[in-house]
Amino acid sequence: MLSISIFRGASLSKIRLAKEVQNQVTTIGAAVNKSEKFSRTYSSKPDSNRMRFVQYLRKNDTTPKLGAISDDGATLTDLSSQSGIPSDMITFIKENISVEDVAKKLTVLPSEKVNDNITLLPPVLNPEKIICIGLNYSGHCLEQNKQPPKEPMFFSKFNTALVGPTGNVIAHAITKKLDWEVELAVVIGKEAKKVAKENALDYVFGYTVAQDISARDWQKERNGGQFLIGKSMDTFCPLGPALVHKSLIKDPHNLSLTSLVNGVLKQSGNTNELIFRIDDIISRLSECITLKPGDVILTGTPAGVGMHRSPPEFLKVGDLIESEIQDLGKLSNKVVAP
Amino acid sequence: MLSISIFRGASLSKIRLAKEVQNQVTTIGAAVNKSEKFSRTYSSKPDSNRMRFVQYLRKNDTTPKLGAISDDGATLTDLSSQSGIPSDMITFIKENISVEDVAKKLTVLPSEKVNDNITLLPPVLNPEKIICIGLNYSGHCLEQNKQPPKEPMFFSKFNTALVGPTGNVIAHAITKKLDWEVELAVVIGKEAKKVAKENALDYVFGYTVAQDISARDWQKERNGGQFLIGKSMDTFCPLGPALVHKSLIKDPHNLSLTSLVNGVLKQSGNTNELIFRIDDIISRLSECITLKPGDVILTGTPAGVGMHRSPPEFLKVGDLIESEIQDLGKLSNKVVAP
Repeated sequence: MLSISIFRGASLSKIRLAKEVQNQVTTIGAAVNKSEKFSRTYSSKPDSNRMRFVQYLRKNDTTPKLGAISDDGATLTDLSSQSGIPSDMITFIKENISVEDVAKKLTVLPSEKVNDNITLLPPVLNPEKIICIGLNYSGHCLEQNKQPPKEPMFFSKFNTALVGPTGNVIAHAITKKLDWEVELAVVIGKEAKKVAKENALDYVFGYTVAQDISARDWQKERNGGQFLIGKSMDTFCPLGPALVHKSLIKDPHNLSLTSLVNGVLKQSGNTNELIFRIDDIISRLSECITLKPGDVILTGTPAGVGMHRSPPEFLKVGDLIESEIQDLGKLSNKVVAP
Repeated sequence: MLSISIFRGASLSKIRLAKEVQNQVTTIGAAVNKSEKFSRTYSSKPDSNRMRFVQYLRKNDTTPKLGAISDDGATLTDLSSQSGIPSDMITFIKENISVEDVAKKLTVLPSEKVNDNITLLPPVLNPEKIICIGLNYSGHCLEQNKQPPKEPMFFSKFNTALVGPTGNVIAHAITKKLDWEVELAVVIGKEAKKVAKENALDYVFGYTVAQDISARDWQKERNGGQFLIGKSMDTFCPLGPALVHKSLIKDPHNLSLTSLVNGVLKQSGNTNELIFRIDDIISRLSECITLKPGDVILTGTPAGVGMHRSPPEFLKVGDLIESEIQDLGKLSNKVVAP
């Protein structure tokens, strides 16, 4: 049931209500949703609801498939069985297949209920890069008594750190300070090289939810001050549930995001707090580093991480981390023993 | 001609001499080579000489091929035209194809002269990881007045930084402190997860030469102290000329390595100075990060980098960087304007 429930937060009944409204009117006005912190953005076009792309594995299959999942996560359409559509998301992005054409196909293709036979994987399986930004929310700077930086600080994770939206996070034996960071993740849509800020959002394919799991002892006290090991251990990058096409996201710089541990709210912020915005980040990176289709950029985390709480809190085996971003969905990852 | 000359150092005539000797005796004794700092290790089995795997591009082709290059770099055998052998090195490594069988094939397959129609590429094109180690030679610690570290410091490069053995290094406009670091690179042969030090070398496929080009201003003064940007700009990782199978390297911890800029010797060391040895590095990394076939590990650089010279020296447009490791070959990379 987890693979369904990741799309269902505390606001499930409100989503259902919104869906009923959607059946009656062609456009959901802002007034309907204004008070709903995590309500979805509904479109008047039923097909565009479906541009939530996933990689999934069917029980007993060995090869992941590419699919589109419904807004509520309850139904799935296999896209990779269609001629001309690959089974790998990054190939799909690279081949620059018209998402409008896919949307049209989706209106006629059969869909199936998501059930326990289907496991959602990270929506990009083998990105060449996972680039992260430190100190990119004013609140996260404040909580550690740091001035907002004058230029972004980049670090990275290896793609072996990826797990899906319900994948387990391993409490590796070599860390005693496992921490959470919910983040908006941007997935690159086409090769970006020396891109001007004005055009930078053209290079985005879509958005998804990430958890930048961090071993604070390794990030801060070990490895000579370089974040790499503390950020890159296996399972330290839950990602998903879906790669939501950018056309569904009205404003990526105005999305609420939260993280909860064992049901208790730990982080609550909005991407409108971003110090360095997505266009600026892409432009700066692409000045000297070629971004490739499928590359993932984690845009930083709001206040409320465990390390800076008083007293500090760290994750332990058995904890459930829920990370949600408005209009994008939710990750539910359990902390497990090595 | 560059694609030939990368295998020809100052010791070319000595290599020729050694080859003549090789025709007369079945085993070249240590006495023949002892005085030759960069002489090759010759085997009594002519086929094993050929386990120097390359990725190359033929003029007017769009797809790289997999080949084996002769010890002196003068002749090349196309392996990817053979049934059962892929054209991609990492696939070749993953499929665990018997190198002994390939060696047998090489004795009967036609070879061709390497000429200007052939460009050698980095021997692995899209490794999932390029992991680097800082401060791993005692001399490099000494030149910056640092104590040898008690545990290795890891950082990384993106694979978009890779260029081949004669590829150009871009002097990106945003750096004024471009520096050189010759390094022994290890290429992983099979998935490594929690590998004991005793078995760690079993997970190595082979060795090659790397240049860890560094923008010192970005490494040290910018990006909040994280090395990533200063180490990962496009073209900052020349690699090659060949991925030499480990069976050809008697002792990876006893290889001379040098770098020259415009013909002037800048670095001269031996991998016997390594503070953290290859088996130790693989074991430590694999404790929490899964290593994949084709992953590249740069093992650190000896004394003599530009930053720590008195006065400091940095690379400029037009400079030629030559990086050579005993038994592995040589990189010749020119610094060019952006």
